[in-house]
Amino acid sequence: MSTLEMIHITLFFFYLLSYTSHATSTNDFCVANFMFPKTPSGYPCKSETNVTSNDFASSSLNVLNTAFVKDIPGLNGLGISAAKIDININGSVPMHIHPDASELIIVSQGQITAGFMTPTNLYEKNLKADDVFVFPTGLLHFIVNTGSRNAIVYAVYGSENPSIQLLFDLLFKNNLPTPIIEKTTLLDAAQIKKLKAQLGGSG
Amino acid sequence: MSTLEMIHITLFFFYLLSYTSHATSTNDFCVANFMFPKTPSGYPCKSETNVTSNDFASSSLNVLNTAFVKDIPGLNGLGISAAKIDININGSVPMHIHPDASELIIVSQGQITAGFMTPTNLYEKNLKADDVFVFPTGLLHFIVNTGSRNAIVYAVYGSENPSIQLLFDLLFKNNLPTPIIEKTTLLDAAQIKKLKAQLGGSG
Amino acid sequence: MSTLEMIHITLFFFYLLSYTSHATSTNDFCVANFMFPKTPSGYPCKSETNVTSNDFASSSLNVLNTAFVKDIPGLNGLGISAAKIDININGSVPMHIHPDASELIIVSQGQITAGFMTPTNLYEKNLKADDVFVFPTGLLHFIVNTGSRNAIVYAVYGSENPSIQLLFDLLFKNNLPTPIIEKTTLLDAAQIKKLKAQLGGSG
Amino acid sequence: MSTLEMIHITLFFFYLLSYTSHATSTNDFCVANFMFPKTPSGYPCKSETNVTSNDFASSSLNVLNTAFVKDIPGLNGLGISAAKIDININGSVPMHIHPDASELIIVSQGQITAGFMTPTNLYEKNLKADDVFVFPTGLLHFIVNTGSRNAIVYAVYGSENPSIQLLFDLLFKNNLPTPIIEKTTLLDAAQIKKLKAQLGGSG
Amino acid sequence: MSTLEMIHITLFFFYLLSYTSHATSTNDFCVANFMFPKTPSGYPCKSETNVTSNDFASSSLNVLNTAFVKDIPGLNGLGISAAKIDININGSVPMHIHPDASELIIVSQGQITAGFMTPTNLYEKNLKADDVFVFPTGLLHFIVNTGSRNAIVYAVYGSENPSIQLLFDLLFKNNLPTPIIEKTTLLDAAQIKKLKAQLGGSG
Amino acid sequence: MSTLEMIHITLFFFYLLSYTSHATSTNDFCVANFMFPKTPSGYPCKSETNVTSNDFASSSLNVLNTAFVKDIPGLNGLGISAAKIDININGSVPMHIHPDASELIIVSQGQITAGFMTPTNLYEKNLKADDVFVFPTGLLHFIVNTGSRNAIVYAVYGSENPSIQLLFDLLFKNNLPTPIIEKTTLLDAAQIKKLKAQLGGSG
Repeated sequence: MSTLEMIHITLFFFYLLSYTSHATSTNDFCVANFMFPKTPSGYPCKSETNVTSNDFASSSLNVLNTAFVKDIPGLNGLGISAAKIDININGSVPMHIHPDASELIIVSQGQITAGFMTPTNLYEKNLKADDVFVFPTGLLHFIVNTGSRNAIVYAVYGSENPSIQLLFDLLFKNNLPTPIIEKTTLLDAAQIKKLKAQLGGSG
Repeated sequence: MSTLEMIHITLFFFYLLSYTSHATSTNDFCVANFMFPKTPSGYPCKSETNVTSNDFASSSLNVLNTAFVKDIPGLNGLGISAAKIDININGSVPMHIHPDASELIIVSQGQITAGFMTPTNLYEKNLKADDVFVFPTGLLHFIVNTGSRNAIVYAVYGSENPSIQLLFDLLFKNNLPTPIIEKTTLLDAAQIKKLKAQLGGSG
Repeated sequence: MSTLEMIHITLFFFYLLSYTSHATSTNDFCVANFMFPKTPSGYPCKSETNVTSNDFASSSLNVLNTAFVKDIPGLNGLGISAAKIDININGSVPMHIHPDASELIIVSQGQITAGFMTPTNLYEKNLKADDVFVFPTGLLHFIVNTGSRNAIVYAVYGSENPSIQLLFDLLFKNNLPTPIIEKTTLLDAAQIKKLKAQLGGSG
Repeated sequence: MSTLEMIHITLFFFYLLSYTSHATSTNDFCVANFMFPKTPSGYPCKSETNVTSNDFASSSLNVLNTAFVKDIPGLNGLGISAAKIDININGSVPMHIHPDASELIIVSQGQITAGFMTPTNLYEKNLKADDVFVFPTGLLHFIVNTGSRNAIVYAVYGSENPSIQLLFDLLFKNNLPTPIIEKTTLLDAAQIKKLKAQLGGSG
Repeated sequence: MSTLEMIHITLFFFYLLSYTSHATSTNDFCVANFMFPKTPSGYPCKSETNVTSNDFASSSLNVLNTAFVKDIPGLNGLGISAAKIDININGSVPMHIHPDASELIIVSQGQITAGFMTPTNLYEKNLKADDVFVFPTGLLHFIVNTGSRNAIVYAVYGSENPSIQLLFDLLFKNNLPTPIIEKTTLLDAAQIKKLKAQLGGSG
Repeated sequence: MSTLEMIHITLFFFYLLSYTSHATSTNDFCVANFMFPKTPSGYPCKSETNVTSNDFASSSLNVLNTAFVKDIPGLNGLGISAAKIDININGSVPMHIHPDASELIIVSQGQITAGFMTPTNLYEKNLKADDVFVFPTGLLHFIVNTGSRNAIVYAVYGSENPSIQLLFDLLFKNNLPTPIIEKTTLLDAAQIKKLKAQLGGSG
C-alpha cells in the first residue's frame, strides 16, 4: 500500500475508534466532519473531543465573503449562515435563486434597491443603512446599488450551506441545446447563441 | 346587522362550538378548513364530524389538471399532490420553478425530454411511457414534447399546494422597471421591452 | 489481503478523498450513496462529481413496478416516490399500511374501489380513470378492482422509500406464538393455525 | 341576538384583542387554545396572559389513564404525552397501531411480554419492573400480561395527541362491506360476519 | 353593540371572506396575520391580496434594535430574524439563553469576546470587525466588549421570533421562593435575597 | 498492518458489504450504528439483518437511571427516551436545562414540587403519585422533594439523546475567567471564586 493510503487508513481508524466513544455524546451541537459524506440533514459530527472554539468562529467574511459550513464547521445542522456583499456604484447582484434557503439582508453602508418576484407580484424596496429586507425561500430576487457610493450588505441565510444560482448561468453557461431553450423561453436562436457566447455555454 | 352578516355569524358559531369538541380529535388526518387562514404548516383542520370520503378524492384531473389541496382538502398537511399535463406535438412546459416542492413525473403517453439545471450542470433525459424523472426542490426545469404525438404526463409534488413560477412571467409580466432588469440580467432595453410587450408587463 | 478486499479499499479511498471536496457542495440535491449506511434523514450523498442525469431517472416502473430510492438514487432526501400497480379483474391490493408515508393514487385505467379506516369511520370511494384518492400516513387501506377489466393505478408516496406492510403477513407469516395472537385478537387457535399455514408462519 | 350568542361574541372579542398583543409573544411554549381549530402543527396558542402552571400539569393519569394535549394543554406542539395502562392477570393490550407516534413503555409493576412486527420479523421481549421497550412509529404492536399479578405500564408517545387504532375495530367495527373484507383479507364471509357481530360492525 | 365591536365584526368578516379566496393561495410565503393566534408553526397567513413589500422590510434596527416577526411580518414561518446590539466600553451582554434558536453574530465595529458553555467545555473567542461566531440552540452564552471603543454587533437567529432569557432574571426577578432557590443552587439565603432585591424579585 | 488494524478492516468490510444490501431496507426503524459518526438527524442505521429485539429494550433504568439511545439503539431517530430519578428526602434536582428536548415527568412515588421559569413568569406545581408535569424545550427548571419520603420520578424526553446541563456547572465548573463572569452576572469576584472552588472550576 502507498504511504498516502497508509495515512488515510490511519486517519480512518482514528475516526472509527472515536465513534464508539461517540455513543455517549449529546446533541449540544454537531460540528461538521468533512471526512464523511454529507447527509440530507447535514454532515456527520466530529467527535466532541476534537472540537475547539475555532469550529464556531471565522474571519472569512473579508477574504471569501462567506461564512458557510465550509468556513465554520460548527454551523452544521443549525440551518444558518452569513455572507458579506460589496456592490460597486452602479453595480448589482444579478437575478438569482436560493432553492434551499430564505435570505435576510442588513444594509451596512450605502443605498440599494432589493426585490423579489412571484407569479402575481413584484415586492421591491429602497433600503438605506440598517434597513432589513427578506427574500423568502426559492424566490427569484436581485439587489441594485442605487446610491452614490459603494454599498455593503450583510446577508444571512436559513441554511448553513445555501446554494446560489445565478439565473443566466442556469440558462446560458451550460450545454443546454439552443432548440430546447427556444421551445421553453421566448428567446430566439440568435439571442440565445449570443448569450451562450457571453457566458461560455455551448450547444 | 345584514342577513349576510347573520349567516356568517351563525357559521362562525358553528365552528366556534366545533373546536371545543375538537379537543379530543386525533392526528389521523387534518382536512383543510378553508374558513380560516392558512398557517405555515397548512390550513386549520375541519371538525372530524364534517369530514366525508369526498374530502380525500377528486375527479378534477381532467377538468382542472390539478389535484391540489384546493381540490382535495384531505391533502392538507400531507405534503403531496398531483397534476396531469397534456403537451401537444412540438409543445413544451416552459422553464419554471417550484420554490416549495420537489416534482416527480411519470410519462403516461408519448415521448418527452425533461431536464433541470444547477450552476454547474444540466441533467437531461429522454423519457417514454412509464419512465420516471425527478426535479429536486427549487431547481429550474422544463419538459419538451420530443415525440410524434401528444404527450401525457402525471406530475406529483412534495407539497399539497405547490407554487408554479414560469420564469418569463417572473421577469416580464409585472412592472419591474426595465433599467433594473438591464442591471440584473444580460438583456438590453430593447429586448426587455419586447418581452414585456409579449407578456403584458409594464415599466 | 484478498483481491476482493483490495477492490473495496480502493473504492473506499475513492470515496474518502471525494468527501473533502464535498465540503464545498451545496444543497441542490443529495443523490443516495449506497456505500454508506442510511441515516434517519436518508442515505449520505454521492459526490456531485459522480452524479449523472441517470441518478434522477428510471425505466423501472414496468419491470419492478417501483420507482423508489433504490431505483432512483436522486430521490434521496426528497420524500417522494412512485409505484405502478396492476390489478386483475376481481383482484385487489390486500389490507396494508405504510407506517412512514402518505399515499396518493391516480387511476390510469379501469374502475376500482379504494378506502381507508379510522377507529370511528370508513372512508371509501369508487374511482374511474384520472380520479385521485389519498390515504393519510399510517392508516390501514385497500384497493379492489370493481370494474370489468384490468385496472392500472399509479401510486405516489410521501417517502422515497416507503414501507409496505401487508396486514396478514404481519399477523401470520412470522413465528408470533399462537397463544399471543389469541390473546391480542378475536381469533381462536384453529383459525390462527389455518392462517399461519396459508402464509407460512410458525408457532 | 341570543344571550348565548352575546356570550360567544364577547368571548370572541376577548380573543381577537389578545392576538394583537400576541404579536410580541415568544416561542417559549404554545399552550393549546381549544377555541380555534387544530392545525397540522397543533392547536393555536392561548394568549400568554391567560397561561397558568395548571396548563402544564395534570392529575388525570388515574382517572382517564391519559395525559394527552386535551388533559395538559401545555403539551401542544411539544410532541410528547403519556398514558397509564393497567393490565389484569391474563389480560392484554390488543393488536393496535399509532399511525402518528412512536411509543416507549416503562413497566412499573408486574411482568409483560411486548412486541411489534415488520413484514420480515417479530421483535418480542419479556419485561419486568423498570424494563423499557420501544415501538417505532406506525408498527403493529401488542402487550400481554405474562405475570402472576396485575401489570402497570407507563406509556409515553412521540406525539401530544396520539391516535390509538385497535386492529379489529378497524376491520370489523364499521360498515366495511363483507365482500370487500373477503377480497382484501384471507377470511371467509362466515368468519367476517361473526367478528362484525362481536364488535358491532355492519355490512 | 358598541362602535368598537362593530369595527371588529366588520374586520372579522373581511377576514372570514378572504379565507375562502385563500384556498387558492400558494406557499410562496406566509405573512403573519396578527388578528389570529399564533400556532406552533407560526402565525396564520395574511391574505395575499393584502400583502405589500413593506411586509418584508423594516427600518426598525436603529429604533427597536430588533427585526423580528413583529417588526417584519413577512418573516413568519421562515425561521430567521435579526437584531443590532450596541455594547458600551466595558459593557456586556449578560449570560442568557435562546431556548428556540441558534444565533450567529457578525461584529460590525469594535472588539468583543464571545463564548458559550457546555457541561464539559467553554468555547470562547476574541472577535474583531467582520468576524463571525455562532451560539448553538439553547446554550448559555455571553458577549463582553473587550475593546477600547463601543462595539456594534449584528445578531441573526434561526427563529423569526427568538426568546431572549437573561439568566439572572430567570432566577431572581420572579417570586420563586428563596428556600427552593437554596435547594436547587449553591447560593445561600442572604445572597439570594440580595439578588432578588437588585432585580425586583420577591419570595 | 497490526492485528488490531486487521480486525478493524474486517469489521469495516462487513459494514461496507451490508450497505449495498441496505439499498432495499425500508424506513420501519433505524437502529443506531455506533461504528459511524452521528449526524444532525441521529446515528446511521445498523443493517436490518443485524437487528434483534434487544435493540429496542433495556433493563438499564435501575443501573444507569437512563434509557437513552446509548442504552436502547432502537430509539435512534425516534426522538424519545426515558430516565428514572430518585430524590432523597430534602433532596432536589438542581436548576438545569435541556437545550434539545422537552421533558415530561410522571411521579411514581412521594411528593415533589416542580417548576420552570420564563423571563416573565414562574410555573410551579406540587405533585403527588401519578401526577404529570411538562417542562418545555430549553427552559430552566428544577424539582424539589417536598414530601416526607424518597421520591421516584419517571422522566421522558422529546429526544433520544437529551443533553443535561446543570446551571452551576455551566457557570463555575470550567475555566471561564472570573472577570468575564463578573461582567456577565451580578456576582462579585469573591462569590465567583468560592463557587468555582466548590465545583472545581478554575480561572
